[in-house]
Amino acid sequence: MEENDPSGLAAAVLAGERRALARAITLIESSRPDHRERADALLEALLPEAGRSVRLGVSGAPGAGKSTFIEAFGRHLIDAGHRVAVLAVDPSSKRSGGSILGDKTRMEALARDGAAFIRPSPAGTTLGGVARRTREAMLACEAAGFDVVLVETVGVGQSETAVADMVDMFLLLLQPGGGDELQGIKRGIVELADLVLVNKADGELESRARRTAADYEAAIHLLRPSAPGWTVRVQTCSALTGAGIPEAWEAVGAFREALGAGLDERRTRQATAWMWNEVAEGALDALRRDGALRALAGRLEGEVAAGRAAPAAAARRLLTRFLAGS
Amino acid sequence: MEENDPSGLAAAVLAGERRALARAITLIESSRPDHRERADALLEALLPEAGRSVRLGVSGAPGAGKSTFIEAFGRHLIDAGHRVAVLAVDPSSKRSGGSILGDKTRMEALARDGAAFIRPSPAGTTLGGVARRTREAMLACEAAGFDVVLVETVGVGQSETAVADMVDMFLLLLQPGGGDELQGIKRGIVELADLVLVNKADGELESRARRTAADYEAAIHLLRPSAPGWTVRVQTCSALTGAGIPEAWEAVGAFREALGAGLDERRTRQATAWMWNEVAEGALDALRRDGALRALAGRLEGEVAAGRAAPAAAARRLLTRFLAGS
Repeated sequence: MEENDPSGLAAAVLAGERRALARAITLIESSRPDHRERADALLEALLPEAGRSVRLGVSGAPGAGKSTFIEAFGRHLIDAGHRVAVLAVDPSSKRSGGSILGDKTRMEALARDGAAFIRPSPAGTTLGGVARRTREAMLACEAAGFDVVLVETVGVGQSETAVADMVDMFLLLLQPGGGDELQGIKRGIVELADLVLVNKADGELESRARRTAADYEAAIHLLRPSAPGWTVRVQTCSALTGAGIPEAWEAVGAFREALGAGLDERRTRQATAWMWNEVAEGALDALRRDGALRALAGRLEGEVAAGRAAPAAAARRLLTRFLAGS
Repeated sequence: MEENDPSGLAAAVLAGERRALARAITLIESSRPDHRERADALLEALLPEAGRSVRLGVSGAPGAGKSTFIEAFGRHLIDAGHRVAVLAVDPSSKRSGGSILGDKTRMEALARDGAAFIRPSPAGTTLGGVARRTREAMLACEAAGFDVVLVETVGVGQSETAVADMVDMFLLLLQPGGGDELQGIKRGIVELADLVLVNKADGELESRARRTAADYEAAIHLLRPSAPGWTVRVQTCSALTGAGIPEAWEAVGAFREALGAGLDERRTRQATAWMWNEVAEGALDALRRDGALRALAGRLEGEVAAGRAAPAAAARRLLTRFLAGS
């Protein structure tokens, strides 16, 4: 059985077998230690064929029309000959096992297309864990020949930074209106966007969408110095009529052209930062798994919270025990 | 000699002796291990008397008039009966040993006042190290009876997040104009501000300052959902004429009132997050100090950067060796 053999599974993924890709991601998402080892072997085999996709984060608050946008955008890409994978990062989905993409009625047409691959958010207890598995799933999708990967987030939490750290470009979807009602998106999220799309620019909302885009454009240019070589764009689109969808993809192309070699540097930075993050998180995990240390950590954390111990001194006490005892 | 005895030094700091405070901070800033131990003992003695200040971050690009603002703002606070400490976080100052507050001609009048205490940025190789020492210096200033602590940053780097993580409220100073020229402040910094002050609102720049404030107010309200209970304010001031300086301090009061008990929760969160950060950084430091591990880390980092190793797998290899060997 190829699922018990990482190299057989890798070969099937590389051959573009969808069910093999689904199984590969299930293996990547597993928290069983023996699965983890096989997942590492699998990723090692896939890695040389990964990295050749356009990696896009897509964020937006509920109501911005994220699923219909991804459906229309994905459709447009597939019609242009691309193969599109859609992944999601949503740590809050741990209870439902993937709420944001788990709803079977969403992205129906896209899900049926052979050139598309849609995968809900992995279940997980921590954002770090969910993000890690999504990152590795992205590599598997790339190795399976998907040349555009969309990573969706809900736009209301901490996941956006994690997604911005794994993609080339971050798209933020807004709805017409905005202003004081503020779209339900959290502080810090507009900051991450390389491209802002005001969706629902159709029918009687069209002029309102244009006004919203103009307002955001002015605000963004005032508050946000551009990344080197790129000035954030604000555009309108309609997932319903398809207006502005080709232009959104053109903006992605313009962004990639503007960054040029900077894109490779960005990926290298992301990958090494990811490695060090994993090391730091892994060390903390090991510390928390140790019963005696966990008790000490809990006590010190309480003292720090109550203002009875200085954070750095508490950290040093914990570290001394950790480094001596492990 | 009291400087060799943490409890004697602590008593002198608590008695409000300025030279003892200066010596205490020098001890806190030292990287010698024996000094570190004494600094921990000192902080433990000071901690019960710390925490009773208003902690303010003050950021702004060169040209925004940060020193003259701090001088005028500090003067206003001292006249109202407060005691004001000014610290700085600027990792780039490692060469000069404190560039941003090191210039003796800056804040001259304030520096001469007995109710003020001004300390340049500690020298340091990492932002983490500089931030840690500034945080501990802040505790020492509080224990010495300073009831307002201003932590200054240059507004052009990564230091601002570190400062926002150690203060109650973050003030951003701008100059009239802004817009496309963007004030020289980096992406993400306006996001941190709880209060934006457009300085130099005097003479012929006054109307321009008001326009800039109005523009920023509109932009901020569009892009930035407020923190719970607080809507970011944008005000004008003139460090030269003193106009708007009392109003800036009133905004600090309004912020503290708006947050209420949330302020204590914020400090508790900051302190525990700081502890865990220190643990993670300390573990990474220990790893990097180990010769064999450092070589392995360098090799793995190179493989990850070149796309030949998956970041998580590389991290696991490093961690396994680290946890087994230390």
